[in-house]
Amino acid sequence: TLVELMEPLHPADIADLLEQINAFDRGRLIRLYDKEFDGDILSELDESIREEVIAALTPQVLADAVRDLDSDDVVDLLEDLEEPQQEAILDALEDSDRVAVEQSLAYPENSAGRLMQREVVTAPEHWSVGQVIDHMREAEELPEQFYHVVIVDPRMHPVGQVTLGRLMSSRRTLPLLEIMEETFQVIPADQDEEDVAYAFNQYHLISAPVVDGDGRLVGAITIDDAMVVLDEEHEEDILRLAGVGDGSLSDKVSETTKQRFPWLAVNLVTAIFASLVIAQFEATIAQFVALAVLMPIVASMGGNAGTQSLTVAVRSLATRDLTGANVWRVIRREVLVGLINGVIFAVVMGIIGVIWFGTPMLGVVIGAAMVINLVVAGLAGTVIPVILDRIGVDPALASGAFVTTVTDVVGFFAFLGLAGAILL
Amino acid sequence: TLVELMEPLHPADIADLLEQINAFDRGRLIRLYDKEFDGDILSELDESIREEVIAALTPQVLADAVRDLDSDDVVDLLEDLEEPQQEAILDALEDSDRVAVEQSLAYPENSAGRLMQREVVTAPEHWSVGQVIDHMREAEELPEQFYHVVIVDPRMHPVGQVTLGRLMSSRRTLPLLEIMEETFQVIPADQDEEDVAYAFNQYHLISAPVVDGDGRLVGAITIDDAMVVLDEEHEEDILRLAGVGDGSLSDKVSETTKQRFPWLAVNLVTAIFASLVIAQFEATIAQFVALAVLMPIVASMGGNAGTQSLTVAVRSLATRDLTGANVWRVIRREVLVGLINGVIFAVVMGIIGVIWFGTPMLGVVIGAAMVINLVVAGLAGTVIPVILDRIGVDPALASGAFVTTVTDVVGFFAFLGLAGAILL
Ligand SMILES: [Mg+2]
Ligand SMILES: [Mg+2]
Ligand SMILES: [Mg+2]
Ligand SMILES: [Mg+2]
Ligand SMILES: [Mg+2]
Ligand SMILES: [Mg+2]
Ligand SMILES: [Mg+2]
Ligand SMILES: [Mg+2]
Ligand SMILES: [Mg+2]
Ligand SMILES: [Mg+2]
Ligand SMILES: [Mg+2]
Ligand SMILES: [Mg+2]
Ligand SMILES: [Mg+2]
Repeated sequence: TLVELMEPLHPADIADLLEQINAFDRGRLIRLYDKEFDGDILSELDESIREEVIAALTPQVLADAVRDLDSDDVVDLLEDLEEPQQEAILDALEDSDRVAVEQSLAYPENSAGRLMQREVVTAPEHWSVGQVIDHMREAEELPEQFYHVVIVDPRMHPVGQVTLGRLMSSRRTLPLLEIMEETFQVIPADQDEEDVAYAFNQYHLISAPVVDGDGRLVGAITIDDAMVVLDEEHEEDILRLAGVGDGSLSDKVSETTKQRFPWLAVNLVTAIFASLVIAQFEATIAQFVALAVLMPIVASMGGNAGTQSLTVAVRSLATRDLTGANVWRVIRREVLVGLINGVIFAVVMGIIGVIWFGTPMLGVVIGAAMVINLVVAGLAGTVIPVILDRIGVDPALASGAFVTTVTDVVGFFAFLGLAGAILL
Repeated sequence: TLVELMEPLHPADIADLLEQINAFDRGRLIRLYDKEFDGDILSELDESIREEVIAALTPQVLADAVRDLDSDDVVDLLEDLEEPQQEAILDALEDSDRVAVEQSLAYPENSAGRLMQREVVTAPEHWSVGQVIDHMREAEELPEQFYHVVIVDPRMHPVGQVTLGRLMSSRRTLPLLEIMEETFQVIPADQDEEDVAYAFNQYHLISAPVVDGDGRLVGAITIDDAMVVLDEEHEEDILRLAGVGDGSLSDKVSETTKQRFPWLAVNLVTAIFASLVIAQFEATIAQFVALAVLMPIVASMGGNAGTQSLTVAVRSLATRDLTGANVWRVIRREVLVGLINGVIFAVVMGIIGVIWFGTPMLGVVIGAAMVINLVVAGLAGTVIPVILDRIGVDPALASGAFVTTVTDVVGFFAFLGLAGAILL
C-alpha cells in the first residue's frame, strides 16, 4: 500500500509531501493512516496544513502520535492551535507530560521557555563520573536528545556542565567538579528566542541550561531547535524586506492576498507622494518632454542603491555587527560608495542623455541628479534602519518604504528642479 | 592590562570587537598579544580583517594559535588565505594534522570534504558498549566535538552509529550492534555544503559521517558547522536579492563600491530600456502631462508586487518547498493574488485619478493598467525564478533585474498605450 511505500521516508519528508499535494489528495492520504501516525510529521508541517491534518486524524491516532513527542515539540505544536484542538492534545498526554507542557506554555510566546525541553539530565556537585554513568544506566527514560549533564547545587542552580564525550572518556572515580566546564551560557526562560538563536550561533553552543527568575534549572535548549529559530528569523527578515507578511506556500489565495496588501498600500501612498513632487513640475515637463522619459532612471537608480545600503544595514543590525562603535564609520562608507558610484553613473548617463536628446545641459542635469540621489540613497539606506532599530521598530519591516520614498522624492525633485533651473 | 580585561570574553566576541574598531586601534590591540593568541579568534574573524590580523601576528604566536584548532577550523581558515600565509600556517602544524588538512583541501571548495573534521571516534562492529568506553578512556586525544560513535566494518564503511547518550545509558556487556541506529544519513565528501546544511536542517542531524567515493569513512560533520553554512547561505540569498555582492561591513570603500557596481549597472540598462518604452509615447505625454505624473505609480506598484512574488518563489526554491509537484498551483495562486489586489488598487487609484485630474477616462486607464501590471507581476515573479533555477542560474541573483524590467516595461506600456488609445 501507499502507506507502506512511505514507511522509509523521514517524517520531515512526509510533511513536505503532504504540503505539496492538493487538499483533496491530502485528505485521501491521511485517511489511510487509520492506525498509526508519527507525531514528528505534525511537528514538521506548515501551520495551515497542520490544523487541517489534526482535524482529519481520529482522536485515538492523534493521542498516540502526540504522546511520543518530546515536551518542546508538543509545545511547538500546541502554541499555534485553536483552543479545542489544544485541549484534545493536552488530554491525550500523560499527567507529568501535561504539567511540563503547561508550564512551558506559561512562558511568553517566542521565549526560551517555549523553546526548551523539560527533560534534562542533572547530577549533584559531589558525584563522580561513575555515579553519573550508573545513574543514567538505571534511568527509566532519558531525553531523546541531550549532550551535556548539568551539574546542580541543592537548590537546583546550575554550577557547571560536562559534555557526554568528556564524561565518557574520564575515569569512573574522577569527581565531576574536576572535569566540568565552569564557564557556560545559562539562558533565562523569558529571553527572546531570537537572542537564544544568536547565542547558539555566536558561541557555537550545542545545548544550554534554561533557568527561571530565581536561577533554578527548568529545562534545556538544544542546538537543533535553535537552528530552527535561526532559520525562521532569517526567513522572516527576507520576507519582511520584500514586503511579504508572514506566510507560507500552503496558504490560501485569500490569506496571501491579505498578507501582501498592506505593503502594496504603503507603496501606493509613497508613490502618490512622489507623483505630487512630479506634479509641481508639470509646466517644466510640458515644455521639455524628454524629462518625462529620463526621470524614472534617476529614481530607479536611487531606489536600487538605497535598497543595497538598507539591506546591508538591516542584516548587520541583526547579526550585531553594526553597533554604536562603528555606526559613523559605516555611514561614512555608504555615503562615499554612493558618491563614487554616483559619479561613475552620472558620467555614463550624462553622455547617454546628450547623445540621445542632443542637449548637453540635459546630460549635466541628469548626471548631477544621479550623484545627489546616490549619495542620499547611501545615507538614508543606513540612517533609517539604524533609527528604526533604536526606537524599537523592526528595521527589516519598515526601512524599505521609507528609503524608497526618500530616493523617489529626492530623485524627482533633484532632476526636475535642476532641469527647471538650468534648461528653461 | 587591556588583554587581561578581555580574558573572560569569548573568542567570537573578541573577533567582533576587532572588527568594529578601526584599523589603527586594531593594530595596537594585536601588538599587545605578543605571547598568546587564541586560534578560535582567527576562525571567527571576517575574511578581510583576518588577513590583516594574521599578517600582524608573529610567526611563533600564529603557529601556537593554529595548532590548537580542529582540522575543520584550520581548513576554513586556510582556504581564504593567500599562498604564502597558507604555507606559513601549514608549516606550523604537526605532521599528522598537516596531512589531514591537506586532504580536506583536496576536496572542492564549498564541499562536505572542506566542512568535515577528520577526527571521528569509530568502533568495529563486534565491540560491546564497555569496549568502546574503555577505548575512549584510553584514547590520548578525543575530538573537541563528537556526538556519535560511528560503527565501521573492516573496510571502514560506516554500518551504523550510536549516540553518546545511548552508549552511556546501556549496560557494558551489550553488543554495539544491538543499540546502533541502522538508518542514518551518510554524506558524500564531494556533496555541496548547501545540500549538507539542508540535510542537517531537514532531518535534525547532530553529526553525520562523511564518506569518500568508495564509501569509506573520511570524517564527520557536526551541526554547529552546518549551522554556520545555513547562516551563510541565507545571508548570501538576502544580499543577492538586494543586488549586493558578497561582502562584509569591514570591507574597504573601494571593495564595496566594486561589489555594488554590477547590479547598479544592470539596473541602469533595464531603466534605460523602460525609458525607451516611455519615449515611444512622447507625443501622448506632450498632449497630456498628467500621464507623466501618474505613470511612475503603475510601474512602482508592479515592481513591488513582482518583488513580493519573486522573493517567495526564491525562498521556496531554496527550501525545496516549491517543486514540480506544486509549481502550477503556486503560479495560479500568485496570478490570482495579483488579480485581486490589482482590482482593489485599480479602484482606489482610479478614483484618486478622477478626483485629482477631473478626467474620468484617466481613472479607467490607470485602473486597467494597474490590474494588468499586478497580474503580470505575479506571473513573472514566479515563472522567472523557476526558469532560472531550472537552467542552473541562482534565482536569488538574477530574478530581481528580470522581474522589475518586466513590470516597468509592462507598466509604462499598458498605461501610456491605453492612454493614447482612449484619451486622445
Ligand atoms: Mg515543509
Ligand atoms: Mg524531536
Ligand atoms: Mg514555536
Ligand atoms: Mg521572532
Ligand atoms: Mg557575529
Ligand atoms: Mg528539541
Ligand atoms: Mg527579526
Ligand atoms: Mg563578526
Ligand atoms: Mg568555508
Ligand atoms: Mg554556497
Ligand atoms: Mg522543509
Ligand atoms: Mg567543527
Ligand atoms: Mg543559494
